[in-house]
Amino acid sequence: MAESVHAIPKGFKVAACSAGIKKSGKLDLALICADKPVECAGVFTTNKVAAAPVKITESRVRQGLCQAILINSGNANACTGAPGLQDARRCGDLVAESLDIAPELVAVSSTGVIGLPLPMHCFEEHVPNLCRMLSHDQFDGVARAMMTTDAFPKISGRTITIGGQEVRLLGLAKGAGMIHPDMATMLAFVVTDALLADGLLETSLRQAVNTSFNRITVDRDTSTNDMTLLLASGEAENREIGDGSAELGLFNDALGEILLDLAKMIARDGEGATKLVRIQINGAASDDDALLAARSVATSQLVKTAFFGEDANWGRIIAAVGYSGADVDPDQVSILFDNVAMVAKGLGLGSEQEAMASQILKKPEFTVTVDLALGEGSAYYYTSDLTYDYVRINAAYRS
Amino acid sequence: MAESVHAIPKGFKVAACSAGIKKSGKLDLALICADKPVECAGVFTTNKVAAAPVKITESRVRQGLCQAILINSGNANACTGAPGLQDARRCGDLVAESLDIAPELVAVSSTGVIGLPLPMHCFEEHVPNLCRMLSHDQFDGVARAMMTTDAFPKISGRTITIGGQEVRLLGLAKGAGMIHPDMATMLAFVVTDALLADGLLETSLRQAVNTSFNRITVDRDTSTNDMTLLLASGEAENREIGDGSAELGLFNDALGEILLDLAKMIARDGEGATKLVRIQINGAASDDDALLAARSVATSQLVKTAFFGEDANWGRIIAAVGYSGADVDPDQVSILFDNVAMVAKGLGLGSEQEAMASQILKKPEFTVTVDLALGEGSAYYYTSDLTYDYVRINAAYRS
Repeated sequence: MAESVHAIPKGFKVAACSAGIKKSGKLDLALICADKPVECAGVFTTNKVAAAPVKITESRVRQGLCQAILINSGNANACTGAPGLQDARRCGDLVAESLDIAPELVAVSSTGVIGLPLPMHCFEEHVPNLCRMLSHDQFDGVARAMMTTDAFPKISGRTITIGGQEVRLLGLAKGAGMIHPDMATMLAFVVTDALLADGLLETSLRQAVNTSFNRITVDRDTSTNDMTLLLASGEAENREIGDGSAELGLFNDALGEILLDLAKMIARDGEGATKLVRIQINGAASDDDALLAARSVATSQLVKTAFFGEDANWGRIIAAVGYSGADVDPDQVSILFDNVAMVAKGLGLGSEQEAMASQILKKPEFTVTVDLALGEGSAYYYTSDLTYDYVRINAAYRS
Repeated sequence: MAESVHAIPKGFKVAACSAGIKKSGKLDLALICADKPVECAGVFTTNKVAAAPVKITESRVRQGLCQAILINSGNANACTGAPGLQDARRCGDLVAESLDIAPELVAVSSTGVIGLPLPMHCFEEHVPNLCRMLSHDQFDGVARAMMTTDAFPKISGRTITIGGQEVRLLGLAKGAGMIHPDMATMLAFVVTDALLADGLLETSLRQAVNTSFNRITVDRDTSTNDMTLLLASGEAENREIGDGSAELGLFNDALGEILLDLAKMIARDGEGATKLVRIQINGAASDDDALLAARSVATSQLVKTAFFGEDANWGRIIAAVGYSGADVDPDQVSILFDNVAMVAKGLGLGSEQEAMASQILKKPEFTVTVDLALGEGSAYYYTSDLTYDYVRINAAYRS
C-alpha cells in the first residue's frame, strides 16, 4: 500500500501534517497541488445536507480548472451553517495566499465529526507550512491524513502507455463507515498526468464511480461530505486522448480499476469488518433487477451478521432477494458460495454442501453468486460483515 | 402481559403445546379456534419469496371465512418448494380432520429457520392432542408458542362498548428480528367478538397495520413468512357495526391501539435492543416526506448505534434526513431529544444542551423530534438501538 510501488504522475506535489484538528495528534491536514491550473472533474454527495466544503468545491470544480486540494480529517464542517461556509472559504483562501493563486482554483474537503465549527486556528497556523512542505513523495502521508475510522490508508495506481508515452494515474481514498452508494461515497482523489481532449474527464469519472464506489456498502448511511475529484495535469506529454478513441478506453479501464481497488479496500475496511464479500447476481430479468437484488443482499443486516457468524444461512440471502423488488421465481433460484452449490431450483442441497460452504465462509474474501435463471441481467456489489466491532466503533465514535 | 388482564373475546378457544419442533423443548405449536366459521381478514408479506403457509393461508383467507389458525415456531417452511406446500396443506388437514371442519377454514402459519422441511411427525403426533386441549385461558401459551428470538410474549387487548354491549379485542404477536415495514411485518393474530357489517374487516385491518407494524423497524429485512390475521366471531351480540358509523371509528381506534401496542413491544424486543425510540418528524413539506425522513432516521445503522452508545449524535440524524429523499433545508432543521432542544435552524446548541440530551439517551424510552419547518407534514416511526447482542444473536441464530 506504500506509494513507492506506484508511479507518481508528473506535475503534482503533496504534503501532509498534524495540525491538531484530531485530538490524537495524528496526521489530519493534507494538500495536493498541481504545478499549474489543471483540468478537473468531481462527483459529490447526493445528501441534501451537504457540508460546507462540498458546496464550495462543487461550484469551483464545475468551472473545470483546479490547482490545489486541501483536505482535513477530524472535523467535517457539516451542519455548521453560514459560519461553516465562511470557514471553508477561509481554508481555501489560506492556500491561495500561500501559493499565490486564485481562490477559485482551490478545492477544500473535510471529513470527521458533524456539527462542530472548524478549529480555524489549526488552519491559520499550519496551511502556510503545508504549502512550503510540498514534495513528490508524500502521497502515503496524504492518504493517512484523510483517515478517520479507517484502519489503513488506501492508495492504488496504474501506469498505461499511450502512443509510446507512459501515463500515470494515482488514487487516494478514505472511507470505512457511512459508506453507501448513489453518491461519491467517501473522499477519493485521483491525479493523472494524462493529456485528454477537453470535456472527457467528467464522463470518465462518473462511469468509474458508478462501477466502483457505487457498488460497495458498509452501512446504508450516505454522508454529508463525500466527494471524488480527478485532476489531470497533461504532463505525460502523450498524444492527446480523444473522444471515442481506443486510448480513452485504456484510460477509463485504468481509472475504473483504481477506483474499484479503492472501493474494495473501503469495503474490506468497513468499520469492524473481518470479511470482504462479493455479491454476484446472474440470470436476472434485467441488469437493473440484478442491481436491485445485489444491493438488497449486500445491505441486509441479517446476511451481514450471518457472514460474521460464518453461517451459510442461504435462507436470509434468498429472503433479501425476495424483498429487493427484482423479479424472482423462488423455485428457479440457485446460490453458490465461491464454487460450492448451496441451493438449486430454490431448494437447499443438504448438510454436506453446507459443511463445504462453511469452509468458504471462513475465508477473508469470497463470492456469493445468486442465479435467478430468468434472463441475462447481472450485477455485483461488495459488502462486509457486520461485527461486534462495528457496534463498538460507532457507539463510541465521538467519545 | 399475562392474558388475565385482558378480557377474552367470546367464541374462541385456544391451545398450545411443545411438539418437539424446537430443539429446546419449549412451546412451539398453537391453535386458535372459533366455535364456528367466522369473518376474517389478513395482511401478508410482500416478499416475493413467500413461504408455503403464507401462500396457502392467503388464498384461504381471501374467501372471507376462517375457523382455525395453526401456528408453529422453530421452522418457517420457507424455500421448501412443492414439498413445503404439501406439508403446509397437510398441517391444515390434520386440524380439519380432528375438528371435523372443511380444510379451507384452516389457516396455517409458521416462523423459524428457512430452508428446512417441516418435521411432519411432530404435527402428525401433536395436532390431534392440541385439538382436544382447546380452552379459553391459554392465550399466553399461544403467544409463547409463537416466539423465536423474542425475549417475551406479546399480548394486548381492549374492551369497547357498542350500543351498551361490551365488545372485546385481543391481539397476539411475535417478532424481534427481520422486522421492517411495508408488509404485515411479523406474525400477529387478533380475535374479536365484535359483530360488523360484511366487508369492513379488511379495511380496518389494513389501516391499523399501516399505522403500527408498518411504522417499526429493527433491521431492514422483510421476512418470507409474515402475516397478520383478524377474526371476528360476532358473539358479543352488539348492534352491528356499520360502514361509516361512529362505532366503526371506535372499533378501528381499539384495533389500532392494540396493533401499536404490539408493534412497540416488537420494536422494544428488537434483537438485543435496550431502547425504544420514537422518531417524530414534524413540519415536513408533506406527510409522505415526513414518512421518508422518519424511516430514514429510524433505519440508520449509525443513528441506532449512537442510541446504544447513548451519544446525542445529532449529526447522524440530520445526515439521515438529508439522504431520505424528503425535501429539507438544512438551515431550518431543529431537533429535540424529548423536550431538550439540540439543534435550532440547523446549528447545534452547544455542550450544555448536549449534556442534558445525554441524560435523555440513558432512558429506556424517549422521542427524537425533527422539525423541518417547511410545512404541515408529520409522521412517526419506532426503532430500537443496534447493540452487541444484535450481532451475537444473529451471527449465531442457527447454531
